[in-house]
Amino acid sequence: MCELLGMSANTPTDIRFSFSGLIQRGGRTGPHSDGWGIAFYESRGCRTFHDPTPGYRSEVAKLVATHSLKSRTVICHIRKATGTSKVCLENTHPFTRELWGRRWAFAHNGRLKGIKRWPLGAYRPIGTTDSESAFCWLLGRVRERFPTPPERVQALSAYLRQLCAEIATTGTFNMMLSDSRHLFCHCSTDLTRLTRRAPFGKARLIDTELSVDFAQQTTPRDIVTIIATRALTHDEPWQAMGRGSFTVFRAGRRMRA
Amino acid sequence: MCELLGMSANTPTDIRFSFSGLIQRGGRTGPHSDGWGIAFYESRGCRTFHDPTPGYRSEVAKLVATHSLKSRTVICHIRKATGTSKVCLENTHPFTRELWGRRWAFAHNGRLKGIKRWPLGAYRPIGTTDSESAFCWLLGRVRERFPTPPERVQALSAYLRQLCAEIATTGTFNMMLSDSRHLFCHCSTDLTRLTRRAPFGKARLIDTELSVDFAQQTTPRDIVTIIATRALTHDEPWQAMGRGSFTVFRAGRRMRA
Repeated sequence: MCELLGMSANTPTDIRFSFSGLIQRGGRTGPHSDGWGIAFYESRGCRTFHDPTPGYRSEVAKLVATHSLKSRTVICHIRKATGTSKVCLENTHPFTRELWGRRWAFAHNGRLKGIKRWPLGAYRPIGTTDSESAFCWLLGRVRERFPTPPERVQALSAYLRQLCAEIATTGTFNMMLSDSRHLFCHCSTDLTRLTRRAPFGKARLIDTELSVDFAQQTTPRDIVTIIATRALTHDEPWQAMGRGSFTVFRAGRRMRA
Repeated sequence: MCELLGMSANTPTDIRFSFSGLIQRGGRTGPHSDGWGIAFYESRGCRTFHDPTPGYRSEVAKLVATHSLKSRTVICHIRKATGTSKVCLENTHPFTRELWGRRWAFAHNGRLKGIKRWPLGAYRPIGTTDSESAFCWLLGRVRERFPTPPERVQALSAYLRQLCAEIATTGTFNMMLSDSRHLFCHCSTDLTRLTRRAPFGKARLIDTELSVDFAQQTTPRDIVTIIATRALTHDEPWQAMGRGSFTVFRAGRRMRA
């Protein structure tokens, strides 16, 4: 299994605090030592870092943890390989593809039985994970249904919700997906979320000795939602997302379906 | 304009020496300060780093220059923005797309007039450069002609050569393209190449005080070809590539067309 971390914010926000906690689970406080990856959106652009080495001692992770890369939308993943998919760069999430001139990023936690036999459309997996197959199937279906972006994101969300439910019939499908504007999340078993907004307080990581006073790093207008497989901090009101739920975030806020 | 650097090798090879020279031209010894990017292939996987800041003082470039990431195929680009395309992450080369379950990477030097009006197939640009439009057009045409990979790479090369010549009618098209196995190069005006093989000697960078003795870092079987806009080292037999030439490298060697 794996762990996921996502962020949606209404202003470019530094995710290093949460990342520093999660990456410890990549071989130190957790068993997810088969690589890690992160995608940061900056406007339409997307910056990704991938490393098939354990996160807690990855040099690339050190760079990410020590340099401020601000983003409104982030997807991060630490991997514990299951089944027969080997540990290598091409099997490291998040996976990305282009649709409608937008870069889509996807990361997944869980196992999906038989998904590799589902008929694919425009996108083909590069690696051998069931996760990447699920992503290719899903994005191919979206492309077929919407050759151009639908006017209302609700139409896209409703279709994605349906596709996610279909995939989830094959196993566990905790996933995060972004088209650079929205963060789409499907929870099969384990996703929890936390929204930070004014008045901001302090937070302390569970996985390493690190605290932060968000009041000193934010403006009163900032809204930042963090989604993770398991809570990353002590003493904050993390809220479990429902089994089978599909949620869309934009600019830090949960959107109405 | 911009500068390009590519590598094809028969064994995973460290490109830091060449990269350390090129990146100086990103604002210190050259005017290419509008961002830089690099794609390293590792088997089927591709690791990319992009930064819209000047290369010579980019923190991400420092990471790349100080950590050994070995690869058989590399494409690197430093950018000097021309025309109306702004300096931002999505306009930073190399651009990547998936075709046939392979990740393709592309970087370009030159200006192409009117290319953005050419009809596109399956791929759409994310940013606003004429380079990315050319890449999307070219890969869309390859996808139409070859829905699955041709048995012989010569068929692919011949078609790419024809597409490159077509693009080059609109302006200057010095480019590097890879499907993870081959490095395809088209030269309109400025590309030069150098093959290092046994007996290996010493080399000294032009742009910064750095020398290396390749004899100490290689085995007698290694073959490494470097392609660049301008020579990167003193005292090595860099060879200009012909105007209008199209060349394919695999495992460090030039392939017969």
